[in-house]
Amino acid sequence: MEKFAWVNLLYDFYGQLLTDHQRKFVELYYGQDLSLGEIAEHYQVTRQAIHDVLKRAESALFKYEEKLGLAGRFIEQRKRLQRALQILDEAKADRISEARKIINEAIELF
Amino acid sequence: MEKFAWVNLLYDFYGQLLTDHQRKFVELYYGQDLSLGEIAEHYQVTRQAIHDVLKRAESALFKYEEKLGLAGRFIEQRKRLQRALQILDEAKADRISEARKIINEAIELF
Repeated sequence: MEKFAWVNLLYDFYGQLLTDHQRKFVELYYGQDLSLGEIAEHYQVTRQAIHDVLKRAESALFKYEEKLGLAGRFIEQRKRLQRALQILDEAKADRISEARKIINEAIELF
Repeated sequence: MEKFAWVNLLYDFYGQLLTDHQRKFVELYYGQDLSLGEIAEHYQVTRQAIHDVLKRAESALFKYEEKLGLAGRFIEQRKRLQRALQILDEAKADRISEARKIINEAIELF
């Protein structure tokens, strides 16, 4: 997974453990895809200041994932559930559509 | 869910964010089901000291779940996946056993 998507996923899992300050800049940079320059201009601070906050936020997110590993497990789980859905798509039968619906709901819980 | 099981589940999710000290006592009390008295005797400290460490550890685990909610989502997800497995059990067909296997693997990832 490419870094941008990975930080976004980690933020979905552990973002609430960051400071308000860190969350704000992660949301602008990773969530809304603003540039360092745009964020710096809006908050009247240097690009370096934004960069430093983002680095610390990323380090915190990577540390949580290193300790808990929940985002990695989620990716593995989603792969398996999607494979199961494919198989069920092939074997068309009556109750299977109900099973597909439930598996999709389970995927969407995260 | 009864408190003992709930603390054990939260510990599975967030235990690595506790201190070594907290982890040790949570594992003995909640994981190995030793009494406060047994733990206190083994470590030559008061029951109250163990009790205080456990209370702080529980508070930390509850706080992580309040912020992240991952254990709650896991329970909801597992319910749905188990329902899907039941439905697949009823509709017996060729590829379905493969789907069941994958769904079970997904459940066991957590």
